[in-house]
Amino acid sequence: MPRLNSYHLPADLWPAQDTPCVRLSGPEARHLLGVLRAKPGDSLRLFDGQGRFGLFQIVGVSGKDKAELAMQSQELEPRPTSGLVLALGWNKSSRRDWVLEKAVELDALGLLFWAAARSQGAPPAEAKDSWREKCVQAAKQCGSSWLPELGVVAGGAEGLVRIAAQYNGCYMLDEDAPTDALPDPLSLATGKNLVVIGPEGGLERHEAERLAQAGFSPISLGPRPLRWETAALYCLGLAHFAARTREHSRT
Amino acid sequence: MPRLNSYHLPADLWPAQDTPCVRLSGPEARHLLGVLRAKPGDSLRLFDGQGRFGLFQIVGVSGKDKAELAMQSQELEPRPTSGLVLALGWNKSSRRDWVLEKAVELDALGLLFWAAARSQGAPPAEAKDSWREKCVQAAKQCGSSWLPELGVVAGGAEGLVRIAAQYNGCYMLDEDAPTDALPDPLSLATGKNLVVIGPEGGLERHEAERLAQAGFSPISLGPRPLRWETAALYCLGLAHFAARTREHSRT
Repeated sequence: MPRLNSYHLPADLWPAQDTPCVRLSGPEARHLLGVLRAKPGDSLRLFDGQGRFGLFQIVGVSGKDKAELAMQSQELEPRPTSGLVLALGWNKSSRRDWVLEKAVELDALGLLFWAAARSQGAPPAEAKDSWREKCVQAAKQCGSSWLPELGVVAGGAEGLVRIAAQYNGCYMLDEDAPTDALPDPLSLATGKNLVVIGPEGGLERHEAERLAQAGFSPISLGPRPLRWETAALYCLGLAHFAARTREHSRT
Repeated sequence: MPRLNSYHLPADLWPAQDTPCVRLSGPEARHLLGVLRAKPGDSLRLFDGQGRFGLFQIVGVSGKDKAELAMQSQELEPRPTSGLVLALGWNKSSRRDWVLEKAVELDALGLLFWAAARSQGAPPAEAKDSWREKCVQAAKQCGSSWLPELGVVAGGAEGLVRIAAQYNGCYMLDEDAPTDALPDPLSLATGKNLVVIGPEGGLERHEAERLAQAGFSPISLGPRPLRWETAALYCLGLAHFAARTREHSRT
């Protein structure tokens, strides 16, 4: 059976147990009806990005952007308790969308952006809807049930220090760290961990020192400078791999 | 000291020991003279992408695109003997440039492209100069001394089977592999290894079976389909990390 197409239905629109019908509208419905030319009787997968997903059947169509759907089954994937939140130094980067996409594919718990001393430009005050939309598109592609939490941390390195207590472990990629200060992938995948990555150009000394003083462990990914998005995906890949390895060593 | 800017001088133009002067011309020289506004007396780093790099000083300038350089020192980094060659199913993908860049950053030994059953379009008969140029640009950014070998493998899966004997280990990412068939990062980083990645949509059964029959080990990166470039960078990251880990466990 070919994989069912996934559509996103925000959690607050998700049908209650006793009213298993729901209306899909807007761009998602236009894609379903206009691009896929789905018809009553066809099935699709809905997900809310908060762990809930289900199989639905189209029971009615009105116009080009409204479909009435009946729930046939649903599941709830528990909120993941382990993994990475990346705190990425803000860049005026066309590669941000790319990192958002990969964060979904590789099960990041969250992506935070912060204004570092070497950031170009300033992040918005809060996460943008377009970032969430990028994550939704990635989740539709890869079938992920949980979307990463997105946010903006104000206050530079000091702002990161203020949120550190929320995490089991805090790390910072630091090009001045000894090159043997490699991260331990299993630690990254155990509990909720924060990894700070500077903007292109890296952290300034005073930032690295402030974070180190607050208990962030300096880590290195080798002697050569990696680009922002490479470092991000590298860390996510290590944690993802360690989680898979642990999963299978338990069974 | 700020990092010196790197410029690429192809191996066949590299100066002999007894004639330590060389002319840099074309786009590299235009960047040096026009963008960086370098002047006689300034220093720069040249590299050939074949392990040779050196410190040079500008001793003369003619026009906007010719600089005479005198070698001050040079080094030769031995050809790496361990690492990954990725054989990537051809995609009409804007993400190809991105994979070329990451391959340089993460020390891939090579990138091969092959026409898989689900490839969209056909690769050119051989590696394109624009791919090499992308790698050169990435090496200038990250300071890598070796450029990955680039190539195109003809003949589909059968063509991959024909080159298998050149590698210490051959693997294929296969979405039908058991999800506990995780790669061993240290094996990926030991000797010269080939990892086959299908195009978007994955391998067809007959391709996976032909490769398995020829001794390619099926590997999985987890239950969810990863995008082409995510899978590529993930494998490169694992091998890179295992190589760093081994390097430091020896010291």
